[in-house]
Amino acid sequence: MAEEKGITVKKSENFSEWYTQVVLKSGLVDYGPVQGTIAFREYAYEIWEKIREIFDKMIKKAGHKNAYFPLLIPESFLKKEAEHFKGFVPEVFWVTQAGDRKLGEKLAIRPTSETIIYHFYSKWIRSWRDLPILLNQWCNVARAEIKSTKPFIRTSEFLWQEGHTAHATKEEADKEVMKILKLYQELIENYLCIPVIVGKKSESEKFAGALYTTTLEAIMPDGKALQMGTSHNLGQNFSKAFDIKFVDKDGKEKYVWQTCWGISTRLIGAVVMVHGDDKGLILPPKIAPIQVVIVPIYYKKVERKKVLKKCKEVLEKLNKVEVRAIVDDREEYTPGWKFNEWELKGVPVRIEIGIKDIEKKQVVVARRDNFEKVILKEKELDKKILQLLESIQKNLFKRAKKFLREKITEEKDYNKFKEILEKKGGFIKACWCADPSCEKKIKEETGATIRVIPFKKEKIFSNCIYCGKEAKEVVYFARAY
Amino acid sequence: MAEEKGITVKKSENFSEWYTQVVLKSGLVDYGPVQGTIAFREYAYEIWEKIREIFDKMIKKAGHKNAYFPLLIPESFLKKEAEHFKGFVPEVFWVTQAGDRKLGEKLAIRPTSETIIYHFYSKWIRSWRDLPILLNQWCNVARAEIKSTKPFIRTSEFLWQEGHTAHATKEEADKEVMKILKLYQELIENYLCIPVIVGKKSESEKFAGALYTTTLEAIMPDGKALQMGTSHNLGQNFSKAFDIKFVDKDGKEKYVWQTCWGISTRLIGAVVMVHGDDKGLILPPKIAPIQVVIVPIYYKKVERKKVLKKCKEVLEKLNKVEVRAIVDDREEYTPGWKFNEWELKGVPVRIEIGIKDIEKKQVVVARRDNFEKVILKEKELDKKILQLLESIQKNLFKRAKKFLREKITEEKDYNKFKEILEKKGGFIKACWCADPSCEKKIKEETGATIRVIPFKKEKIFSNCIYCGKEAKEVVYFARAY
Repeated sequence: MAEEKGITVKKSENFSEWYTQVVLKSGLVDYGPVQGTIAFREYAYEIWEKIREIFDKMIKKAGHKNAYFPLLIPESFLKKEAEHFKGFVPEVFWVTQAGDRKLGEKLAIRPTSETIIYHFYSKWIRSWRDLPILLNQWCNVARAEIKSTKPFIRTSEFLWQEGHTAHATKEEADKEVMKILKLYQELIENYLCIPVIVGKKSESEKFAGALYTTTLEAIMPDGKALQMGTSHNLGQNFSKAFDIKFVDKDGKEKYVWQTCWGISTRLIGAVVMVHGDDKGLILPPKIAPIQVVIVPIYYKKVERKKVLKKCKEVLEKLNKVEVRAIVDDREEYTPGWKFNEWELKGVPVRIEIGIKDIEKKQVVVARRDNFEKVILKEKELDKKILQLLESIQKNLFKRAKKFLREKITEEKDYNKFKEILEKKGGFIKACWCADPSCEKKIKEETGATIRVIPFKKEKIFSNCIYCGKEAKEVVYFARAY
Repeated sequence: MAEEKGITVKKSENFSEWYTQVVLKSGLVDYGPVQGTIAFREYAYEIWEKIREIFDKMIKKAGHKNAYFPLLIPESFLKKEAEHFKGFVPEVFWVTQAGDRKLGEKLAIRPTSETIIYHFYSKWIRSWRDLPILLNQWCNVARAEIKSTKPFIRTSEFLWQEGHTAHATKEEADKEVMKILKLYQELIENYLCIPVIVGKKSESEKFAGALYTTTLEAIMPDGKALQMGTSHNLGQNFSKAFDIKFVDKDGKEKYVWQTCWGISTRLIGAVVMVHGDDKGLILPPKIAPIQVVIVPIYYKKVERKKVLKKCKEVLEKLNKVEVRAIVDDREEYTPGWKFNEWELKGVPVRIEIGIKDIEKKQVVVARRDNFEKVILKEKELDKKILQLLESIQKNLFKRAKKFLREKITEEKDYNKFKEILEKKGGFIKACWCADPSCEKKIKEETGATIRVIPFKKEKIFSNCIYCGKEAKEVVYFARAY
């Protein structure tokens, strides 16, 4: 499909424009006609399929099942939990008409599905025998975003999974919240190669309707934080609003404790931002739709057949060890053109095979992450390529981890805090008195919010960064997407 | 989850009520708050996951990729192809508001995605190098159904796949249409065990905007036909409406030829209808979420541990050969209660293990399809169970095939035609002059439509069943869902 040429700006110089060019030119997305919507082209969707496959396996192993609930939610359902309604109603798409009939009650396109799912839970749950309920759905959700939309990162429709569980006790719900958070961390760090800081949200940043929210926060190259996923303990807020009760073993009627948790196609945006370079995407091997591209190199027509034959042999060898490889045998493009295209698309490994390589029983291999080239013996190719993919996977995480470390600044002084935000960005580790009013003022004055209160408790090293009173928590501030 | 007891009506006596009870009581679905919407509970969704997995593999092997396009379609897009708009607009859910802003242009929730997808194709396709485009999406679609809604069969929202391809020539598009139709047939006959008649739709029954429509038609136990899937050649109708042109190898600009094709969660409803019996569901082994349920039988507490241990051993043995099995070790229910529940849920095979079986190194095995019981030696269990599942799969198809054959009646006389429709239902094979007005009158007078003009040409055996003039086609009439 008609791709334009390479990226024309540097990531370090104009990050926003760089991002836009990369996601469009690498063929990940295209803009939709409705504000903030995108088409997930096959290349992006394949990445999503990988992410879905990996996480789906994790949650199923942990006893969860998938289900699917209606897209359309009556307005009255959304209103049942007041905080939740307030949180979501400004961005709801409303259906008011079906054919040419005007509807009696407005219907929301789900911005998230708590209210519709819990309507069903209240019908399905009767006894302790029905608990826990451990359901998840992979679906689309819509939120009318007007400003600062950005493919993957903030769109009016996105794809996600939303898990919704119901338990007999708070302790069980607590455990579920943490179990999922750990699975998210495994997915994001081990598969997407993006290190995160895990912890709780402050009261003012928690999910609308939750008891508490846990989060995974990453830092992007422009110094802004990105929320990668959240896992919430909803307490009994929704079970009281939706009347979800069960008869416990002791014969008493009780409200269930609930959790919900989600990750979305936003993760693809994070992968683009964190790993990409001036040439385009760099995809972690574990989620790359194509892990290895084999490019035949020949100058005369007569060489073509021989080189292609060898390419196919190598392809088969790699397929056998389950490497996702392709041969780019298009005649209408030069090798150089192909190199550029596959670099733009972030394929982790490129193999070049020419007549001389065939004679020497070798291939030339180029890594996308650091452009290193090595020559590999044909006979040990499969083993070495697997090692190489593993090494790229590790290197990407290491690089991102180093960057994250550099982007965490500990600060006691509010003026310096503001200076850091302007000049360096990233997370500012600071002490806080736990008063929401300090948090609010900081947000108003600097645009930075408390992204996460880490689980890993750190020693309080100063008074509250804002009011100077005694501090209660060490927290991470940042400006965020 | 609080399941009520068994089915209280006979399939042969009150088919509609039987169907409703089965889909609700087996835990497949629950009704949503918005007219015609349903929740796909985990048991139904697992069946859908199986269907998706099977078909997804088929189309990927045939070179297709998945993508995802926006849910919301501007009204102006829908209007671009006049026939298409006329066909779908009466059932469109319209979004007119976002938050509290009134939208400038109404947005349709996709009833199907031709118009939004082809908007993108017109941007992406420039040259013959960009062809063919072979994309598919798995998604939800919504159509406001007011009357005769029925879980799976006709709902206001359903899940489906819609393939959308673009080709340089009509011949290529013709081939694609048939390739997909064959994959559908393989899926439906070999996996869902439902025999179908394949062929073309008549002009008046084809897809709104298509050049021609091919279809797979099955017969349900109440004698009504069910359209299982369709594969359409769209010709150049949409490429002209959406200006999808390419420069061909000869340097000339041409409109692309397009196809689209879909199957939906309706297939689950067909499985329920065709195979189920008075005890509930009967699931074909290849798509059953649980293929084997192992029920421990013990009367004294002391036996429990020993029996459960053996059950787990058998479970592991079955898991090793990739049989989807579970042990129902719930203490709060009796074996008899469990038998009923798993029969209701249509699990193909039940294994019973008691103390005496352990002593004799055997297990008791019951088939869901015909209630036959056999005793199997423990050591050959895995092999025999695999054979048994295969045999059940075949038997279900054979039974359905026999039923289909019985429900096809050849008829020359219009009065008898009407009588058959009333008394027996099913397909009526009749000769037709190919004049749409005869087709229309038959529909008005009897409610029967031409479901399919089979590819397998049959000899014309009479004049037109309606007008008595010379017949041109042998076609299959039926009343349909």
